[in-house]
Amino acid sequence: MSGRLAVIGLGPGDARLLTPEAEAELTAAAALYGYGPYLDRVPVRPDQARHASDNREEGARAVAALRHAAAGAQVALVSGGDPGVFAMAAAVCQEIEAGPETWRDLDLAIVPGVTAMLAVAARVGAPLGHDFCALSLSDNLKPWDLVERRLDAAAGAGFVIALYNPVSRARPWQLGAAFERLRKHLPAATPVVFGRAVGRADEHVVVTTLDRADPAAADMATLIIVGSTQTRAIARPGRAPLVYTPRAVQGARSRRVSA
Amino acid sequence: MSGRLAVIGLGPGDARLLTPEAEAELTAAAALYGYGPYLDRVPVRPDQARHASDNREEGARAVAALRHAAAGAQVALVSGGDPGVFAMAAAVCQEIEAGPETWRDLDLAIVPGVTAMLAVAARVGAPLGHDFCALSLSDNLKPWDLVERRLDAAAGAGFVIALYNPVSRARPWQLGAAFERLRKHLPAATPVVFGRAVGRADEHVVVTTLDRADPAAADMATLIIVGSTQTRAIARPGRAPLVYTPRAVQGARSRRVSA
Repeated sequence: MSGRLAVIGLGPGDARLLTPEAEAELTAAAALYGYGPYLDRVPVRPDQARHASDNREEGARAVAALRHAAAGAQVALVSGGDPGVFAMAAAVCQEIEAGPETWRDLDLAIVPGVTAMLAVAARVGAPLGHDFCALSLSDNLKPWDLVERRLDAAAGAGFVIALYNPVSRARPWQLGAAFERLRKHLPAATPVVFGRAVGRADEHVVVTTLDRADPAAADMATLIIVGSTQTRAIARPGRAPLVYTPRAVQGARSRRVSA
Repeated sequence: MSGRLAVIGLGPGDARLLTPEAEAELTAAAALYGYGPYLDRVPVRPDQARHASDNREEGARAVAALRHAAAGAQVALVSGGDPGVFAMAAAVCQEIEAGPETWRDLDLAIVPGVTAMLAVAARVGAPLGHDFCALSLSDNLKPWDLVERRLDAAAGAGFVIALYNPVSRARPWQLGAAFERLRKHLPAATPVVFGRAVGRADEHVVVTTLDRADPAAADMATLIIVGSTQTRAIARPGRAPLVYTPRAVQGARSRRVSA
């Protein structure tokens, strides 16, 4: 007998951004696995087993969920945001490759979700409206000089940059070093967005500029967007500025439109 | 009186990937604007005005929706996928910047959605599991040599690359040229995914390699993911291969896990 493993994106945390497909997979599961704070977003149901684990235990968590599904159960493994973006889907694929042949025959479903950069971008306008990249600042899984090379390549070629995993207790200096690196490529006035917990009660979104961007304003739950030379901030009376990157490289058209 | 403009991401097309927030905004709107095929996804309601427009008319469509909202109506402007990724949110911001001051005072909501690259990635595994970029191949709004520079920068620095707008009737050769360019940086066996209409009745997803990637297999509705040197395809008996990019740069760990 073979079960099913659904790797589910919960979105940024607001229930209104949880897709019906994710909701249906959560409902159908006999057991839930996930990092504790993500699992806490799923309402408790007495007939559903819950297996919370720690942040850094992705491999072990994937293995436990795969074993449980391979034993015939319907298992859900939850991720914040989208499971394919710096999250559990890659860990599951990696364990399937390394694990017993029978795991390749499992019914595996990956359920996409709204990843943090899309939610943060939507809050401030459209900073990802032109070519962009997503880069994890964690150097747990890659050397720091590679992070620097990627920052250089992305900023130098005009990509807007979304920074995931900007900081943690064990990685206090990386975000400051990244801003320093980016200041070599980008003007001081380049818009920078700090977005934390979008859609949740403790949402905090700040629009600033590269010269004023303060690494201390970010924590583990913050997603940062650094604009390109084309990215613009539009002042609005009584509202937060709109930040967007025009679709055309030449910048905003100069014509004005009558109301 | 001032109305409200909601710029809504419909996701890749499967109703199960339409968020509750997008659904609520569609329900609340008195008028809908959008590119015809996207608008066709929203069920017709006799009390809701519908204004379909052509693919290339983003600016005019944004202006029409903004004027309507500024006149006091609750207006929804729909995009496929996420409205902030090569879609309508940037066009709206641009027209707000260029338009009358009163538009800056509008109640503007941007509702994120599951963008195509996330849906395609989920179908095949986790190709976006490590650093990646999203690049539009359209040279309508930027010069082709800039597209080439960005392909060089992204592939050279080890980003997985999601290609939006790979081809159209007016742009028949760009995708082939992009594959040629990428072949200078990446091995022949680099996994390439063609994903079309994920979650819809005419879904078509193909996993191939860079040396065999055929530009003729793509159309306007196709999203293409080109792996990095780290991206792997895992054969599965009786199933499509799993494609993923390990979170760690050194590739899959060599240990095997017992079942």
